[in-house]
Amino acid sequence: MKTLSLIAFTSMVLLSISSSAQITSKADNNKLNFIFQKGEIGPAENFTGKAWNIGLVENDSVYNTVVGNVYFEPEAISNWHIHPSGQILIITDGIGYHQIKGQPRQTLKKGDIVMCPPNVEHWHGASPQTGMLQMYILPKTENGMVTWLQKVTVEEYSNHK
Amino acid sequence: MKTLSLIAFTSMVLLSISSSAQITSKADNNKLNFIFQKGEIGPAENFTGKAWNIGLVENDSVYNTVVGNVYFEPEAISNWHIHPSGQILIITDGIGYHQIKGQPRQTLKKGDIVMCPPNVEHWHGASPQTGMLQMYILPKTENGMVTWLQKVTVEEYSNHK
Repeated sequence: MKTLSLIAFTSMVLLSISSSAQITSKADNNKLNFIFQKGEIGPAENFTGKAWNIGLVENDSVYNTVVGNVYFEPEAISNWHIHPSGQILIITDGIGYHQIKGQPRQTLKKGDIVMCPPNVEHWHGASPQTGMLQMYILPKTENGMVTWLQKVTVEEYSNHK
Repeated sequence: MKTLSLIAFTSMVLLSISSSAQITSKADNNKLNFIFQKGEIGPAENFTGKAWNIGLVENDSVYNTVVGNVYFEPEAISNWHIHPSGQILIITDGIGYHQIKGQPRQTLKKGDIVMCPPNVEHWHGASPQTGMLQMYILPKTENGMVTWLQKVTVEEYSNHK
């Protein structure tokens, strides 16, 4: 009798383990810890795949600082682009990439900080399997915010030498 | 034999369940989603209770922006203080408070953004029961960063009219 109830209990435990395993194999966004709403999908001319953007701090002449959050779905990436005063990226969850023109592609994870200097070409986005949640800070917006450039090629996206 | 190994497996599962239950019933910081390391405890002359600070972006003349993260343990709060170019707070988890001198105390939770204007007195910190994880952004650091003032009184901390 004791053994039987033990077996019943074991089945319950196993069921519970298997159902939580199921959750982690669902869509990517169920696994990441979202701090903000997803926002709106970024325009196809500047992004490949689904990059959801939400503005957190709008531009003004008091702070001259813009803050927002992007959720890059797996494989979603920005075009190459330039920030006249540079950009600070703060990765809050997931796995993604950042590359400055002429430099190796960096892999990014939760807690990483990226400093992209003013007037250099860069792109950022998610890894193929896991999305990336990242906040961005644009300082000194009196100099402008962003100039969008060409798409990242498949070769650039996959190259991590 | 099969039953015996089942019992052994059950014990392992139970051990694992009990150890994770133990984690969630520990101190507050185990319940919050930490993105960064906790860092160092802020000095007692500027903070009441344990406010852990980690610098994420140091001051320089390129970005003129300082970014960091504070984990306020339950009941931990800053003194009153002033930022010459204001401050942006981003709450990533927990529950806390923010007050600008002469205004009502605000309650803060995950996803909230606070804009504290330049040269006004404010304080921030955790609620009595739940800690708060918050990032801070100091823009335009060429004007300075912070001037520390007097302690927040118990009356100011508890008053939410």
